[in-house]
Amino acid sequence: MKATLIHAARDIRLEEVADPRVVLPGDALVRVVASCICGSDLWPYRGIAPTDEPHRIGHEFVGVVEEVGADVATVAAGDFVIAPFARSCGVCAMCQRGVQTSCLNGGWWGETDRDGQFVDAGQGEYVRVPLADGTLVALSEQPDPALVPDLLALSDVMGTGHHAAVAAHVQTGTSVVVVGDGAVGLCAVLAARRLGADRVVIMSRNPARQELARAFGATDVVTERGDEGVAAVRDLLGGIGPDAVLECVGTEGSWQQAIGAVRDGGRIGYVGVPAENPSLPVRPLFSRNIAVGGGVAPVRHYIPELLRDVLAGRLRPGRVFDLELPLDQVAEGYAAMDERRAVKVLLRP
Amino acid sequence: MKATLIHAARDIRLEEVADPRVVLPGDALVRVVASCICGSDLWPYRGIAPTDEPHRIGHEFVGVVEEVGADVATVAAGDFVIAPFARSCGVCAMCQRGVQTSCLNGGWWGETDRDGQFVDAGQGEYVRVPLADGTLVALSEQPDPALVPDLLALSDVMGTGHHAAVAAHVQTGTSVVVVGDGAVGLCAVLAARRLGADRVVIMSRNPARQELARAFGATDVVTERGDEGVAAVRDLLGGIGPDAVLECVGTEGSWQQAIGAVRDGGRIGYVGVPAENPSLPVRPLFSRNIAVGGGVAPVRHYIPELLRDVLAGRLRPGRVFDLELPLDQVAEGYAAMDERRAVKVLLRP
Repeated sequence: MKATLIHAARDIRLEEVADPRVVLPGDALVRVVASCICGSDLWPYRGIAPTDEPHRIGHEFVGVVEEVGADVATVAAGDFVIAPFARSCGVCAMCQRGVQTSCLNGGWWGETDRDGQFVDAGQGEYVRVPLADGTLVALSEQPDPALVPDLLALSDVMGTGHHAAVAAHVQTGTSVVVVGDGAVGLCAVLAARRLGADRVVIMSRNPARQELARAFGATDVVTERGDEGVAAVRDLLGGIGPDAVLECVGTEGSWQQAIGAVRDGGRIGYVGVPAENPSLPVRPLFSRNIAVGGGVAPVRHYIPELLRDVLAGRLRPGRVFDLELPLDQVAEGYAAMDERRAVKVLLRP
Repeated sequence: MKATLIHAARDIRLEEVADPRVVLPGDALVRVVASCICGSDLWPYRGIAPTDEPHRIGHEFVGVVEEVGADVATVAAGDFVIAPFARSCGVCAMCQRGVQTSCLNGGWWGETDRDGQFVDAGQGEYVRVPLADGTLVALSEQPDPALVPDLLALSDVMGTGHHAAVAAHVQTGTSVVVVGDGAVGLCAVLAARRLGADRVVIMSRNPARQELARAFGATDVVTERGDEGVAAVRDLLGGIGPDAVLECVGTEGSWQQAIGAVRDGGRIGYVGVPAENPSLPVRPLFSRNIAVGGGVAPVRHYIPELLRDVLAGRLRPGRVFDLELPLDQVAEGYAAMDERRAVKVLLRP
């Protein structure tokens, strides 16, 4: 089959690799219907995260089950499934507590699993999915093809934006500022509104992204950054700032923006991958009673709830995909996202 | 009147100072019935926080109102009152949101207020209290003298321990580890149990404090520190660690202990004054989904709720005072706390 490998910074190739198959009794073999490129895939693409040797890449996909192992109980051949960006068993102490990203038996796509078997990554034609019962979410029937982008968004960005909003305790009447206008930030806007936020300010300088943010429910746009951005946010929100900031970038600068903007006693929900490993000074958080929550989103935990809304037509996160390419143009997809010509690229094998 | 001043590290003196009086229409003049020494007073006492010039000290007191200004509506001469460790107006956007420590009009004891008038500190005979309506909580009748230590604990340590537990979302069934066996840590044990925690582990090496922690409801004691302490906590709590850690110290070491001990997806409620200004690495918090909340406790917000339980005899935090001295022995009180001969010292003018 064909699958995507990253060889080095800015060197993305679609190559012929071994066909995966069911190996373990808990496995499912999934034919990928759609996958996509994540903002976090740009870290190695840009060389910010090193690539020591060529490896598979991609952690978001939806597809159809081709075959399952003998122990698989909740998905069957022919099922349309959503794969979250982390594998999880569904039964360990962490999965039971809704922290599937810390599953005691799980892991990531494109690595060797705990049984010593290679697990395919998402940007390919097929994937062997270990722990299929705990990892995959099967739909009860085949979805309308028009919903595929929305369903694919549940594999990462929508659940991640939702996690930021949940971690920041967004509820009816909460005022929210979203830092980051990438796919996750845009989904955070959608999530905040869905949870009842009445004011959602997006910080963005990009007209197309501003427009999408407004379509997702943003009530205000702030184009300034740094101290000016903080001042503009405070001006908009009663002079004190928002109840909640959703930090969807992960850099020192975005954290400064978040801490500067949030009101005293407010909450920062963060999901931006901390590629630069920023550190948080305790003193300002202490003196201003700012709470910080979030992290790598346990998307598996959220899929059932969000899926209901997608299937009911109440939640349409698929609009974050503004470029669709065949899988053999995956390298162009990376370039388009790197150059910010696209918010998020959907790939069809 | 007599009041306590700190002149330099380990130089505490009771001196004759100007008698305070009602100056502004929102003022109350309070005769101090009891005050106390805080663990945070030891930072300047030990020279860790610098003392540039002699100044008043003490931020916890209860007393009886002697006189009020023309605008004061909620307290009257003769009332027994509890003063939280921060002054607050009660009506600004921050006070309305329960963050009285960020009051737009408030401040601290022993400083000059926004009207240019000096505000006395707590370790003295009398205190001019600006913003009396927003700051003081009056009892509806004179309390039983035996309750004075419990009421005094509401001025800081009990509300602070409670804040840690609230910030860590402690509720029925939560498993909790408390880092710090000082008065705040001990009150955090009490608060966690009061909020429904079924397992409360105190990290302590001091037999007297362990005993008090058990009397306050701690179910387990861990004497190890560092990596051994983390391992011991995990062993006790299902191999994964507690749902919540209450960080009541504020040093790099105590933060490492807290982050090391808490389970993935858990919460750190912190109230330890960050005298060393520790910083938090985002990456481990991110990858493990650890939430961090707390800060300088808005004690004023919590007093009414906690006071009900104290008056009903359900909450007895006053046991943290294990040494009572007349005010003229205040210097000995500091020495006793510094040398850990006392958990917390109550002073009677």
